[in-house]
Amino acid sequence: MPEFLKLIPPQIAISLMEDALGDVKRSKESILTEESYGFIVAEDIIAPQSLPSFFRSTVDGYAVRSIDTFGSSSSMPAFLEIIGEVEMGNSALNELEPGQVVVIHTGGMLPETADAVVMVEDSQRLSEKELEIYKAVSHGENVLNPGEDVKAGEVIIKSGTMIRSVEIGGLMALGIVSVPVVINPKIAIISSGDEIVSPEKDVKNGLVRDVNSYMLSALISQWGGTPVKYGIIPDNLETLLSISMKAFNDCDMVVFTAGSSVSIRDITADAIRSLGDPGVIVHGVNIRPGKPTILAVCKGKPVIGLPGNPVSAFVTANIFVQNTINQLLGMQIPIIEDRIIAKLETNISSKAGREDWVPIKLKRSHDGLIAEPIFARSNFIFSLVAADGLICIAPDKTGLNAGEEVIIKTFQ
Amino acid sequence: MPEFLKLIPPQIAISLMEDALGDVKRSKESILTEESYGFIVAEDIIAPQSLPSFFRSTVDGYAVRSIDTFGSSSSMPAFLEIIGEVEMGNSALNELEPGQVVVIHTGGMLPETADAVVMVEDSQRLSEKELEIYKAVSHGENVLNPGEDVKAGEVIIKSGTMIRSVEIGGLMALGIVSVPVVINPKIAIISSGDEIVSPEKDVKNGLVRDVNSYMLSALISQWGGTPVKYGIIPDNLETLLSISMKAFNDCDMVVFTAGSSVSIRDITADAIRSLGDPGVIVHGVNIRPGKPTILAVCKGKPVIGLPGNPVSAFVTANIFVQNTINQLLGMQIPIIEDRIIAKLETNISSKAGREDWVPIKLKRSHDGLIAEPIFARSNFIFSLVAADGLICIAPDKTGLNAGEEVIIKTFQ
Repeated sequence: MPEFLKLIPPQIAISLMEDALGDVKRSKESILTEESYGFIVAEDIIAPQSLPSFFRSTVDGYAVRSIDTFGSSSSMPAFLEIIGEVEMGNSALNELEPGQVVVIHTGGMLPETADAVVMVEDSQRLSEKELEIYKAVSHGENVLNPGEDVKAGEVIIKSGTMIRSVEIGGLMALGIVSVPVVINPKIAIISSGDEIVSPEKDVKNGLVRDVNSYMLSALISQWGGTPVKYGIIPDNLETLLSISMKAFNDCDMVVFTAGSSVSIRDITADAIRSLGDPGVIVHGVNIRPGKPTILAVCKGKPVIGLPGNPVSAFVTANIFVQNTINQLLGMQIPIIEDRIIAKLETNISSKAGREDWVPIKLKRSHDGLIAEPIFARSNFIFSLVAADGLICIAPDKTGLNAGEEVIIKTFQ
Repeated sequence: MPEFLKLIPPQIAISLMEDALGDVKRSKESILTEESYGFIVAEDIIAPQSLPSFFRSTVDGYAVRSIDTFGSSSSMPAFLEIIGEVEMGNSALNELEPGQVVVIHTGGMLPETADAVVMVEDSQRLSEKELEIYKAVSHGENVLNPGEDVKAGEVIIKSGTMIRSVEIGGLMALGIVSVPVVINPKIAIISSGDEIVSPEKDVKNGLVRDVNSYMLSALISQWGGTPVKYGIIPDNLETLLSISMKAFNDCDMVVFTAGSSVSIRDITADAIRSLGDPGVIVHGVNIRPGKPTILAVCKGKPVIGLPGNPVSAFVTANIFVQNTINQLLGMQIPIIEDRIIAKLETNISSKAGREDWVPIKLKRSHDGLIAEPIFARSNFIFSLVAADGLICIAPDKTGLNAGEEVIIKTFQ
């Protein structure tokens, strides 16, 4: 394995993979807006109308011609005539002549001849038709104008945006009840190794249950892919080649999680090479855990070989698989990443030149959040179960000091 | 509305609601572990066995009796006899006599008589059976011990934990293929107001489309509830009472999102009062946006009345509805909340005594993340679409200064 001799820094590995994958052709479909949470918008969405679509009152009170309130105060009230009431959900029936007002509720539509609303608190109703106003209002006061929220023809949601609850709300406000989204890419998961068995099996001596397929499947769903599991393949090149080819043809991306023996790692690399050009882009990344990661692009599809240890597979999936799925989706990465800041509880040492990822347990203190590193071997899935997130120690550091502020990457 | 005169601070409102709701009876069911992402574990999960379940090698090399390597070095190698190979997924067939070793792969099971593994890099194979070892290994070196990851009988996942990918992995590692979870509570959503119409409808003068039902539905799903929409009810107490009662009987919680007029707000409060004792706990919260929020508990079920403006409904749902769903689920809130830190771009003023929530757009700068406040009226859904998160200005502050570090609460 000469490739292992030149370990590539993770950031370079990501760039090489992104460049090799290049522009991705995406399939799109139209789905119901109310079922679109978490999908990626496939094209710019344009506002078909302005919002609000009419002059709306922001308060309970009286729609007026502002000029009629000029100079009014508690010592010198304006006397106006109430000629009706605006019903919610209807246009105002009355036109205002000078000196006239109508009762209006929050959200109600102003008569065309009104240009402001006097709050009920600033007035006193003397009789059914007589109103005293104690405060002048200026043109547009207590009124929302058409187009103040969004204007017809504006791009309201950019292509590549992930739909949250508020995008669903915005689309509904405009009557956009279906939305074009990127079809979730199908991501094949192939587990391999003679020692790996299905989780429902008893583990006799020497056997371990498949953890990675299920953990990856959950992650891939959260990241916007559709996971497709191809089972556990024994340490046999021929079988692995045929399953790999099938998975490759059926799906948009293939993720291998190989067993831990040298032999299965070797035949996984062979299987990846068999899938087409350009093939392996990176074999061996300068990261711990996760050194034996393989990144490849075969005939325009991404193929990733993850290490077999659960923690290694988890960390490298969070870096390389998630990034590649984002590229397949054409997703605009929000500036907000799931990360928080805490103070490190103890020193952590790290080898210079290598990126180290360490699981972290958070604790509250009067001094803010404290990050306690969980030092465990990458074989141990329960070191992740105990963790609230991960921290990354950059390759140019030889460690982190107790008390230092660290950024914690949360995970799904 | 005398209740409005005594506005309650949000944190007190939350506590009053939590106390009034008290202990919640939860229904649980067993579901497949591989489909359990995002569910809340309903009881402590105990490890049925230890992991690893056998002595495993962490390297490729030779399983040895460590005593046989004592004193060996490159100048003084130990000569040992290779008597076989441990197949992956099988017990070692051979017992080691003094001076004997077996070939072993990463993850392989040690023979009972071996207690350490020599790395292949520290040895040279002279022939099929002859091996030179250049480095002594100590007892247990390069070996994982049974129970090092988790011990049989240990609580591996506490009741109330939300299942992430790593919990799925941990359960699978132990062969736990189904898991007891809290059944997602059914949350009724009732929209009301004469001006509100369904999103597919044209909005003529005075009408607005229902935004809140759909935005809330997406949020409630993300928070672990099952949303049930009861449609849009006109400004009519009788109809609202009958739909409210049906929703209340069918579901575990009811959320009203009332139109903006006084009248519909009043009849919503009446409808909530009709649902049973103790009834309204809080009517009016000292928060902007969101002042007219109603918190109630009726016959042991939570009932929440949200304001009609979309931004107000969104902010108060994120505070009160999410917290109440967490209580229904018995969820242990992870210390990690979705929040990040950024520097404020401009001053924000705020009224002392009131909690203010402001949407924030994030920007990157060479100086870290910058938070740009989005000043918009709470009517404007697209102020949220433009936002990456929200900041909260505490009641004891009269504002925040440009350059100040703020915590941003992200949202779904």
